[in-house]
Amino acid sequence: MKGREALLLQYLHETNCLYKVGDDGVAINKNIYALDSFMENTHFKHGWLKLKDLAFKALSVNVSDIYAMGATPKYALLALSIPQNFSAKNIKELAIGIADACNFYKIKLIGGDTISSSLLGFHFTLIAEQNNILVQRKGLNIGDILCFSGTLGSSYSTLQQCLHGFMPTYCKRHEVFFARRIGSMLIPHISKHITMGMDISDGLSVELTRLSKINHVGFKFLRKLSKQELISGEEYQALIAVAPKNLKKVLLIAQKNRQQLHPFAQVIHGRYKGIGKEWHK
Amino acid sequence: MKGREALLLQYLHETNCLYKVGDDGVAINKNIYALDSFMENTHFKHGWLKLKDLAFKALSVNVSDIYAMGATPKYALLALSIPQNFSAKNIKELAIGIADACNFYKIKLIGGDTISSSLLGFHFTLIAEQNNILVQRKGLNIGDILCFSGTLGSSYSTLQQCLHGFMPTYCKRHEVFFARRIGSMLIPHISKHITMGMDISDGLSVELTRLSKINHVGFKFLRKLSKQELISGEEYQALIAVAPKNLKKVLLIAQKNRQQLHPFAQVIHGRYKGIGKEWHK
Repeated sequence: MKGREALLLQYLHETNCLYKVGDDGVAINKNIYALDSFMENTHFKHGWLKLKDLAFKALSVNVSDIYAMGATPKYALLALSIPQNFSAKNIKELAIGIADACNFYKIKLIGGDTISSSLLGFHFTLIAEQNNILVQRKGLNIGDILCFSGTLGSSYSTLQQCLHGFMPTYCKRHEVFFARRIGSMLIPHISKHITMGMDISDGLSVELTRLSKINHVGFKFLRKLSKQELISGEEYQALIAVAPKNLKKVLLIAQKNRQQLHPFAQVIHGRYKGIGKEWHK
Repeated sequence: MKGREALLLQYLHETNCLYKVGDDGVAINKNIYALDSFMENTHFKHGWLKLKDLAFKALSVNVSDIYAMGATPKYALLALSIPQNFSAKNIKELAIGIADACNFYKIKLIGGDTISSSLLGFHFTLIAEQNNILVQRKGLNIGDILCFSGTLGSSYSTLQQCLHGFMPTYCKRHEVFFARRIGSMLIPHISKHITMGMDISDGLSVELTRLSKINHVGFKFLRKLSKQELISGEEYQALIAVAPKNLKKVLLIAQKNRQQLHPFAQVIHGRYKGIGKEWHK
């Protein structure tokens, strides 16, 4: 059986009810919208993180999609599944995490719904006002230099530790995450100078495969990346492309924003087929 | 323990991250947004409806919130939980239902997320463009006449039948529902002439209790309503208020739109405390 999401999208495409689906978010009438679910047993397991950290991360994964398009999030709606056995203390902790995240990203919560369920789940819809430049996945030119922000790979190693029973509270990856450095927050600052921008949710290699397909291009690597760097998901770092003449300017802006930005590949004619699991199949 | 949603909202209120929460939907920069979840075991049980009818109803409950504010829905995002055991045929049926509903209401699906789960669940976020008149729950004046659209009560009796093991496919309530007569669709047509408008999601009596609290008024009944009419939820009929001088005009517009509209109470000084279960506690 073909992947469920692909199957659903295929059927929906045939019925002509889809519109603009494809980027991290979607731009409609000067607004940008994004929705990503964050569910127990799918994206995390009970006990991996404190409730308030889970709420923070649930919002962050959506925030990253908005920044990836060069915009700044303003409002959120939240559908929240709360396990039946949650105490008032648990709910307070959740509320503190949601509020903490909203206040950190300067987002107002404008609506939502809560339901009782067996599993904890967050479904945030984010609303942003579009900046002058809309950053998209399509737009790569032959010769463009691809760069990623920050470091890649630690999310994968933390995930492996979690899956083998080590609690990640003290793991470096989550220290980094909760130091609140979402690399894609750099994109609005450089949107004028880049030809493509997105965040790395599902691993660099998977994202490159998608980019190759959308833009009908291949990639020549300028440096060797480890398998871990290529397949690590949930990084929320920026993946951008820039014309060689603008590379210096973009690296300078990144530096001013205290973000590392690493050139690692060049756009060439051809096709790229990467490694790593396609999560949204 | 206080209700979960109330508790969550209380904590969130204290942290200053909420904005404009209170109506069926929320108006931001000329757009209106609404999010209602529709979950297996909370809002329906497995087997009560065909998958395509469930998808249709999941969108309808959200559509009703948008119409309740006098607006017309344009776009939707969908977070969809799909049970692990769903076959390709099941997914096709779901897609057909989603597409059918989107096309019926002239809504484009612009994004979303799918996750595997043990239960089927729909979390639609709807986006509408605001009309000149924004219809809200606040605005009742002493002397205003309250009216509801259509008929009330059949949803309650169908629910009772479902809970006692009768499949509702042939029940009148769902015939009515799937005849696609959401009474709140009348509201945009009369928005210029009314002082308050909303849809009846949780039962007339519960909605009146909320209205009394928000507007600091009471109600004098002009006709006797049955307990069933008062407590039946998921009716998606309109509940509106109109100044006596505009009543005739509004009834005429309803008639032209082939909608019954029943005056049943008048706004007075005082307080109303109704019967029926507060679902969102």
